[in-house]
Amino acid sequence: MTKVIDLNADLGESFGPWRMGADEQLLEIITSANIACGFHAGDPVVMDRTVKHAQRHGVAVGAHPGFRDLEGFGRRRIHGLDADELKTLVRYQVGALEAIARANGASVGHVKLHGALANMASEDSAIARLYVEGVAALDPELVVVAMAATELERAAAEQGQPLAREIYADRAYNDDGTLVNRGTPGAMIHDADEAADRVLKMLDEGAVTALSGAKVPVEAETVCVHGDGPEALAMAETLRRRLEQAGVRVEAFRPTKREEH
Amino acid sequence: MTKVIDLNADLGESFGPWRMGADEQLLEIITSANIACGFHAGDPVVMDRTVKHAQRHGVAVGAHPGFRDLEGFGRRRIHGLDADELKTLVRYQVGALEAIARANGASVGHVKLHGALANMASEDSAIARLYVEGVAALDPELVVVAMAATELERAAAEQGQPLAREIYADRAYNDDGTLVNRGTPGAMIHDADEAADRVLKMLDEGAVTALSGAKVPVEAETVCVHGDGPEALAMAETLRRRLEQAGVRVEAFRPTKREEH
Amino acid sequence: MTKVIDLNADLGESFGPWRMGADEQLLEIITSANIACGFHAGDPVVMDRTVKHAQRHGVAVGAHPGFRDLEGFGRRRIHGLDADELKTLVRYQVGALEAIARANGASVGHVKLHGALANMASEDSAIARLYVEGVAALDPELVVVAMAATELERAAAEQGQPLAREIYADRAYNDDGTLVNRGTPGAMIHDADEAADRVLKMLDEGAVTALSGAKVPVEAETVCVHGDGPEALAMAETLRRRLEQAGVRVEAFRPTKREEH
Amino acid sequence: MTKVIDLNADLGESFGPWRMGADEQLLEIITSANIACGFHAGDPVVMDRTVKHAQRHGVAVGAHPGFRDLEGFGRRRIHGLDADELKTLVRYQVGALEAIARANGASVGHVKLHGALANMASEDSAIARLYVEGVAALDPELVVVAMAATELERAAAEQGQPLAREIYADRAYNDDGTLVNRGTPGAMIHDADEAADRVLKMLDEGAVTALSGAKVPVEAETVCVHGDGPEALAMAETLRRRLEQAGVRVEAFRPTKREEH
Repeated sequence: MTKVIDLNADLGESFGPWRMGADEQLLEIITSANIACGFHAGDPVVMDRTVKHAQRHGVAVGAHPGFRDLEGFGRRRIHGLDADELKTLVRYQVGALEAIARANGASVGHVKLHGALANMASEDSAIARLYVEGVAALDPELVVVAMAATELERAAAEQGQPLAREIYADRAYNDDGTLVNRGTPGAMIHDADEAADRVLKMLDEGAVTALSGAKVPVEAETVCVHGDGPEALAMAETLRRRLEQAGVRVEAFRPTKREEH
Repeated sequence: MTKVIDLNADLGESFGPWRMGADEQLLEIITSANIACGFHAGDPVVMDRTVKHAQRHGVAVGAHPGFRDLEGFGRRRIHGLDADELKTLVRYQVGALEAIARANGASVGHVKLHGALANMASEDSAIARLYVEGVAALDPELVVVAMAATELERAAAEQGQPLAREIYADRAYNDDGTLVNRGTPGAMIHDADEAADRVLKMLDEGAVTALSGAKVPVEAETVCVHGDGPEALAMAETLRRRLEQAGVRVEAFRPTKREEH
Repeated sequence: MTKVIDLNADLGESFGPWRMGADEQLLEIITSANIACGFHAGDPVVMDRTVKHAQRHGVAVGAHPGFRDLEGFGRRRIHGLDADELKTLVRYQVGALEAIARANGASVGHVKLHGALANMASEDSAIARLYVEGVAALDPELVVVAMAATELERAAAEQGQPLAREIYADRAYNDDGTLVNRGTPGAMIHDADEAADRVLKMLDEGAVTALSGAKVPVEAETVCVHGDGPEALAMAETLRRRLEQAGVRVEAFRPTKREEH
Repeated sequence: MTKVIDLNADLGESFGPWRMGADEQLLEIITSANIACGFHAGDPVVMDRTVKHAQRHGVAVGAHPGFRDLEGFGRRRIHGLDADELKTLVRYQVGALEAIARANGASVGHVKLHGALANMASEDSAIARLYVEGVAALDPELVVVAMAATELERAAAEQGQPLAREIYADRAYNDDGTLVNRGTPGAMIHDADEAADRVLKMLDEGAVTALSGAKVPVEAETVCVHGDGPEALAMAETLRRRLEQAGVRVEAFRPTKREEH
């Protein structure tokens, strides 16, 4: 049976006069774009341009909401948001992108949290649940992208929201399926072929080899790639090429509902 | 035949810790709410709360987009936006409200520009056209609220976008159907009954009496009322009561397409 | 010997079109104003107006910097700011107020952190130290207002920065000189005369009676009062009157340098 | 007698995670830096870093305030600001930079408006006057940088505020000393040596040759150079080299008070 995988990346992170990211090159590689929605990056014109580019490349459009913190690029944890703030923060951003997508004949099929908000939803089950509830009331078909083995994956699965589980090609894993902290030696994988090998192995065996050598069951529908710098872009290109050479179909993910597990 | 009119007002103009407006009282009077979308006022939580209140009162929900200028409350003209900026500025805000409305089981049925952006679209045919094009690509059924006898009314009519023409109960008119400038003596009508008389006469005769005494043909589907201060609220209440006493049905407008003119 | 105390309050918390606070009434009562600097509240025009009002009432002008978070009013903790961000965040805001004060013939004599930033500097010795270093390089004479018995008080004392220690008239104290959490029964004092009694006792005995009944040594140069609602204003008025009746001189604080301890 | 000229450029236009400008290269060439103050570009950390770089290169520090419009980079005209808004907008930004400079042992010696605000002050005598009044009350020694032959130059001269008149090396002039509009053929000078020749001639003769061939008297203390792209940087380098070869002293301007005219 043909194996299938999606490649996703964060796009549309320019703002006003400032440019960021290798969007054009990434769009040649990826199959799903997570588009910033104006709170941590992006503005209406950048969002519109990014949707158009994604469409031209046949790349699926998704929302990438974050904290309202341009200066900190949504990477600073903001504490103390209550349930309503959390839910409406996400809805506002997703809706803004939906309108811009719709006017271009596109639609928003998935949502992936950005930066500190993503980290908080991965770790904190209450935030994860509120976020998934917020998305579900907005659109029960909207696919939640969640790192494998996180509170967010659990919350989406429990609530039956369509879910795309995500792995990183360039990060080492712990025995429990979580990522090894960036500071730890061996946490980052810099060799493109090694990264590709790991993804192929995961697709073959439904498991990754943890830093300890242990086999950790990990299933995923999408792989996160980056475009910051030539090394990251080269790794993404190698990954795509190696996947195709191995007969894997690289295409936008299909949602995995809980009942299908 | 029973006459019908809508009463609209701007709502949801609080922001973060700051409160503004007599939303609760206005919702007892009006039939359509223009809800600020976060650029000149409002934030996701305020938008959500305002949609809920509007629903509870059976008041129609519309978007009230403006320039991104919290400090100036969207009342300062910002020049130099190109076509893409203008269109996406509106789409972003309308979409944000749509998502928040949808999660509450409501939908956004109309759009009315705020402040300086509204004035510019009323006066400048190029801006009016771009705005209507921007709305049309978003939703060909979305009703554009436009002051009678403005470039915006013309643009919406020409492009066949559903249109609700608006008059002010508390403003005097020039012979060409435009509003008398606020500075001019007699421009503002302070007596609630006089204001109600004018609206009733307009409904009877399809015309308003201009400051000059001339009869000026004006048709309108909605009357804009205000809630800033007890005098404005009292005028709005009187208007509603007088309309109902005269047998006018006060309810959310029905779109008027060009072909029906 | 005549006892002396300062009464301080947060002022200038309006923003753009939105009004907040009973600034005019508070200025009749207080001797030091902590003026918001545009990041969590306030804007250049509000700051200018507030400085003018303070001058007219002979009230000392101080800066009240906070996190850049209008929507959350600076009350949400933002984590992950590095040393440079923390120092320059404060300098930027203090400098902005200094310029506006100088153009009015006034000067900024003290600085008091706002909201979440204040809480973090009270609890976290690293943040407290960075903040005091940031202030010292800006102006070695600028008085740091710090809650008694906090990391911030310690940091200012250790670094020899002029310091005004602050107590709350309307809050109960723990045995270690910290405030009883708002949720705990008895944490808030609602009776104006009881609040005044406590402040007078602290001035007489250099100690407060903790919730447990224990005497806790607390010295302070300033008392924080509030203007949110008629109850708070009445308490502030009562406090001022009772202090004056007891022969206490109510005036802007004099800095307490470490060597004078 | 040795001729003296200053070279100025806009610096510190990065924001949060976004980088802009060739600050390091420009600092090798220029003698005065106009540092963005956070409203159209720049943030406290960027401002601090830029001040430090300028000091290391012995480059004079000045403020570069603009409209509060990050998204539009301060290039969109915002109408309807009243006198207080205009004055405090500038004071706020200058003060913020002053504090950051002071903490680094530097001081702010000049102020040059940015973008749309600069254009409006150049053309509109009322805005020019308010701006100069705003600066004068802040610091009567602060040098106002103004394009030669503008309302702003006149306003600064009339009010006796220290003034540095500015020319562009890469722009053609009209007979009245104003710049030829960018759209007009011949408006932009692309050859670095031609640009240098023009500046040298202006220094020799106190006049520029207008597009018409006419000699137009123009005196200036500073030349504005740019760093956007390799061509602009090369032109700035050539200009500096040619000036030095011709025996002109390139150094930060000295203020020209009205009485010295």
